[in-house]
Amino acid sequence: MRCLDPVKVIEVSDATDERLADYVRLRDVNLRKSLEAEHGLFMAEGEKVIRRALQAGYRPRSFLLTERRREALADVMEGLAAPVYVVSEDVAHRLVGFDLHRGALASFHRRPLPTVEQVIADARSVVVLEDIVDHTNVGAIFRSAAGLGVDAVVLAPRCADPLYRRSIKVSMGAVFTLPYARLDDWYAGLGELSRLGFRLLAMTPAPGSVPIAEALAGTGARDRNALLMGTEGDGLSSRWMEQADVCVRVPMVDRDVDSLNVTAAAAIACYELVRGRVEDRAAG
Amino acid sequence: MRCLDPVKVIEVSDATDERLADYVRLRDVNLRKSLEAEHGLFMAEGEKVIRRALQAGYRPRSFLLTERRREALADVMEGLAAPVYVVSEDVAHRLVGFDLHRGALASFHRRPLPTVEQVIADARSVVVLEDIVDHTNVGAIFRSAAGLGVDAVVLAPRCADPLYRRSIKVSMGAVFTLPYARLDDWYAGLGELSRLGFRLLAMTPAPGSVPIAEALAGTGARDRNALLMGTEGDGLSSRWMEQADVCVRVPMVDRDVDSLNVTAAAAIACYELVRGRVEDRAAG
Ligand SMILES: C[S@@+](CC[C@H](N)C(=O)[O-])C[C@H]1O[C@@H](n2cnc3c(N)ncnc32)[C@H](O)[C@@H]1O
Ligand SMILES: C[S@@+](CC[C@H](N)C(=O)[O-])C[C@H]1O[C@@H](n2cnc3c(N)ncnc32)[C@H](O)[C@@H]1O
Repeated sequence: MRCLDPVKVIEVSDATDERLADYVRLRDVNLRKSLEAEHGLFMAEGEKVIRRALQAGYRPRSFLLTERRREALADVMEGLAAPVYVVSEDVAHRLVGFDLHRGALASFHRRPLPTVEQVIADARSVVVLEDIVDHTNVGAIFRSAAGLGVDAVVLAPRCADPLYRRSIKVSMGAVFTLPYARLDDWYAGLGELSRLGFRLLAMTPAPGSVPIAEALAGTGARDRNALLMGTEGDGLSSRWMEQADVCVRVPMVDRDVDSLNVTAAAAIACYELVRGRVEDRAAG
Repeated sequence: MRCLDPVKVIEVSDATDERLADYVRLRDVNLRKSLEAEHGLFMAEGEKVIRRALQAGYRPRSFLLTERRREALADVMEGLAAPVYVVSEDVAHRLVGFDLHRGALASFHRRPLPTVEQVIADARSVVVLEDIVDHTNVGAIFRSAAGLGVDAVVLAPRCADPLYRRSIKVSMGAVFTLPYARLDDWYAGLGELSRLGFRLLAMTPAPGSVPIAEALAGTGARDRNALLMGTEGDGLSSRWMEQADVCVRVPMVDRDVDSLNVTAAAAIACYELVRGRVEDRAAG
């Protein structure tokens, strides 16, 4: 059960107050990365996303509300021990570095990630991200994967953080509900997926790869497939391509466009991967 | 023929120099919007994108290179009259407001847009964007549409600008090659598409809409289809939904995700729209 302390509402008028340290300079990506790793926290922005984090069972460290929105989350905060800091818009701006239009932020404790084995144990369709750099892409891919019915996401050791503020926001909270894990070992990590019977499909626009619909034709309900998506600049590493069972592409016309944005390619691939299953469920 | 004046290379050491006015404060979206509209210019960033703008026949106003990259575009600049400003990284930072890692910017003259009638005259597949706010989404949708083989894009009067720096970058230059036009009239503008025989498919995750594959089944090579995509927050307006011939959806599973990101939804829809045609071409 949650702690039932009364809600602690604390007005703070100084942007440098130590108690607000979790919220400092939200646009400074490098600072935030090290600060969030060091303290094992992540940052949720906006009422909807904060509610989703709470629903998913994440434990808040504190809330930050602007005066205009001080009542915003009253219903959910009632049973929680975490302090609620209320600041003026001006203090908020100086603290986080931009206008807090949505008026609500919360800092949450991270949880230990499950192992790769755990997240793929019962999965049939998995998306594997190799070194995606951009948090918008990570968030949008989680949103597509969750919405379209993919079972889990596996990240390469250097893939950008799904719990970074921007990823969370773009994912609309899908990073809280879709199970994911991180490989310890970039070089040999895919081996585990293969051993568990996953067919590895390397997504690449390169000619010579098989159109995705063709590669997935005849996939049965019990087949296990893993889509490997490559980094924004250079695409999949040759190491990962070598380990794949098949290289697949989204067919493109011969214009000046060399590749799709990774979010777009992943959306189409996830759609193809699960289409039979989703239509079945909708019909049933 | 292009003007054959010798290249004009000018070293500038003051970030407030009037000649650099096109490049000021690139991250200040509001300032940039009014400045670019007023002077009829747009900004291209990075060598690849600049080359694509030149290839597409856009006329440069000037170039801005950092010292380290002063030779970067020498080959293409040779026949051009536009001045080439060379600045230190420090001046560049003070001028544009961030580190110019890619080392190259160019300011180009806009051209008058074609009319909607002109861009759809020979088109069979069209994407129509209603009030998309985010430049990343606009750019990524152009990239998908061009790469997948859609013929043209039509924008609602208030849709974000495809020639904004961020849109251009994310589109990888597809905004230069894929024909597009803007409706003058939000309320009645879709009428023109209908009169020219386009079937209007309103993309909406709402239940009751038809799965996109079903809606497009039996589409022949000469059929004309227009996909209507809605804004990030609220989706398509009821006015546009009413005018549509059919409401279509990308089927989703029943999780906590209400909708896909508009870039993801557009990618899947464009893929479905053109799939028969692209496979044909690849095979033929
Ligand atoms: C921007 S692309 C990288 C482009 C890189 N030059 C390459 O050749 O892979 C990022 C990722 O999106 C996926 N991707 C993009 N377009 C694709 C397509 N047409 N077919 C399959 N995958 C694609 C791939 O996984 C790729 O690694
Ligand atoms: C983020 S969504 C807007 C969500 C909005 N609440 C709604 O109900 O339309 C932005 C646009 O993406 C498209 N979209 C997103 N998910 C979709 C889906 N599953 N099927 C069809 N279109 C979708 C629609 O065109 C929508 O207007």
